[in-house]
Amino acid sequence: MAQRRVLLALLSSAVLGSCFLAPSVHSATAPRSASQAGAAFRSSSIHTNSAAKFASFSLLSLAALAAQMRSVARRASQDELKKQVGFKAVDDYVKSGTVIGLGTGSTAAFAVERVGEKLKSGELKDIIAIPTSIRTKEQAEGLGIPLATLDTHSDLDVAIDGADEVDPALNLVKGGGGALFREKIVEMCAKKFIVIVDESKLCDGLGPGFPVPVEIVPFCHEHTMRQIAALPALAGCEPVLRLGNVANNQKDGDEPAITDNGNYIVDLKFTSPIKDPVAAGEQLKATVGVVDHGLFTGMTTACIVAGSDGIIVKEA
Amino acid sequence: MAQRRVLLALLSSAVLGSCFLAPSVHSATAPRSASQAGAAFRSSSIHTNSAAKFASFSLLSLAALAAQMRSVARRASQDELKKQVGFKAVDDYVKSGTVIGLGTGSTAAFAVERVGEKLKSGELKDIIAIPTSIRTKEQAEGLGIPLATLDTHSDLDVAIDGADEVDPALNLVKGGGGALFREKIVEMCAKKFIVIVDESKLCDGLGPGFPVPVEIVPFCHEHTMRQIAALPALAGCEPVLRLGNVANNQKDGDEPAITDNGNYIVDLKFTSPIKDPVAAGEQLKATVGVVDHGLFTGMTTACIVAGSDGIIVKEA
Repeated sequence: MAQRRVLLALLSSAVLGSCFLAPSVHSATAPRSASQAGAAFRSSSIHTNSAAKFASFSLLSLAALAAQMRSVARRASQDELKKQVGFKAVDDYVKSGTVIGLGTGSTAAFAVERVGEKLKSGELKDIIAIPTSIRTKEQAEGLGIPLATLDTHSDLDVAIDGADEVDPALNLVKGGGGALFREKIVEMCAKKFIVIVDESKLCDGLGPGFPVPVEIVPFCHEHTMRQIAALPALAGCEPVLRLGNVANNQKDGDEPAITDNGNYIVDLKFTSPIKDPVAAGEQLKATVGVVDHGLFTGMTTACIVAGSDGIIVKEA
Repeated sequence: MAQRRVLLALLSSAVLGSCFLAPSVHSATAPRSASQAGAAFRSSSIHTNSAAKFASFSLLSLAALAAQMRSVARRASQDELKKQVGFKAVDDYVKSGTVIGLGTGSTAAFAVERVGEKLKSGELKDIIAIPTSIRTKEQAEGLGIPLATLDTHSDLDVAIDGADEVDPALNLVKGGGGALFREKIVEMCAKKFIVIVDESKLCDGLGPGFPVPVEIVPFCHEHTMRQIAALPALAGCEPVLRLGNVANNQKDGDEPAITDNGNYIVDLKFTSPIKDPVAAGEQLKATVGVVDHGLFTGMTTACIVAGSDGIIVKEA
């Protein structure tokens, strides 16, 4: 609903913008402080431009606005798709009286929302949920979902989570958000692991579309990165130490990002698909210094995919 | 030398003790404070006992003293054995112009001492050493041994370290001191790995003689301990969380011991030998939640063993 309201607001402003474009542009270039006055003065040609220049500027602004609208619409539609798969996973796979694993991320959040809704309405009863991150734990607590940990409940009936990439065999890359260890240790314990994605996450082969995150011990991490790059099943990868915020793989800081477990993350960049993801995962985990990795192979029971043509379910 | 001095002192006191035994016993039972006076009063029979009772007490004390002497002599002789193997490893395997790994523990400390001696005398030159613990780093720094880490020097010519147990195939249990991760990551990089032990460390099969330490991620550690106990190659083991001081496997505290890497240690107790240490190690490392373990298989180049019959070298 929120996205729809934003979309409507933007559509309205676009119509208004086309009527009152010149003042809008003017306002955007007006100096907001004394220090900006010089720059505004140097660009004062905008204020003295001909009508033709105004018109071309207006067209450019319209194009930018349209692009912005398309982006918002895409996000809204992508969110709608995520919601559809998140809800469907709960509706199809979560039964009363079961122990469930709750994933992390924007798609999994819709599944958590749905569990909360159905518990509240009484449609679901006696659920115990194991969250895979502090963020998910907080969301679930807010919705009144009873929680536990693997220490007391390690036999899960089903776990539901998103993924960063899904290949045709339903092997996954996960861990863009830095929580791969908790996600893996929980989801390994589920009788059924349901993956929920929009179609943009499907790929022919893992690797080139999304770097594979690997959690490593900080001690001698440069050595460990070299060892990883030399693994036969990972030939050609470029290991990049994650810097700044651990929750994304963009460089947004100068210090190594630290996981919940006090470790570093290395993002493995590939230019061609990983030939054998199972072997790659085994070689990574067997490497001294590697705690775990974002290749989730042989775990998926079913993948619910939302696309422009509707929802499809792929089974392993 | 220190041990020899202690031994001589004890031998002297034993002779003196046999001459002045009654006063010595008397002094040992005299009350040291007002609160002890009551107890001394209740046991005042000692002061009124017959000569026969004094004699039996004296014999008991003599026996205790003899046991103490034997223990000190054993320790001194064990230290002498450790020194012999530590020195021999350096003399036989460390050449000038090489990169070496320095182990941790009471036996490895003698090897570090020898490297320092030979660098000082000029018998060794151009050595770069990689220590496996902060303790070893400090000892080496004190002796003026040039140090580096795996980040800059990951091709080691030789590494020398002790072990907690050695089987006939020269597979090892290490990590009683909690430093298994740093020891393993360094010693994996050595072209030759020389193990130095006294004969008390030799066994027919790993496991029953010394618990196998495993470093695990703290999150959901109880679950991970159950997973470890269920591994086929570790059938029958009892995982015990290490409490208190991380540097030994005795319960000397109530809180989980924390490694240099911020993890927990689980000590696996066995009543019968591990049938396949290689499989056990592979299954441990492949377990989600396990960082690394104290089974060092297929790594040893040679094991220098000091025993009552002299020094022997076993090669893999």
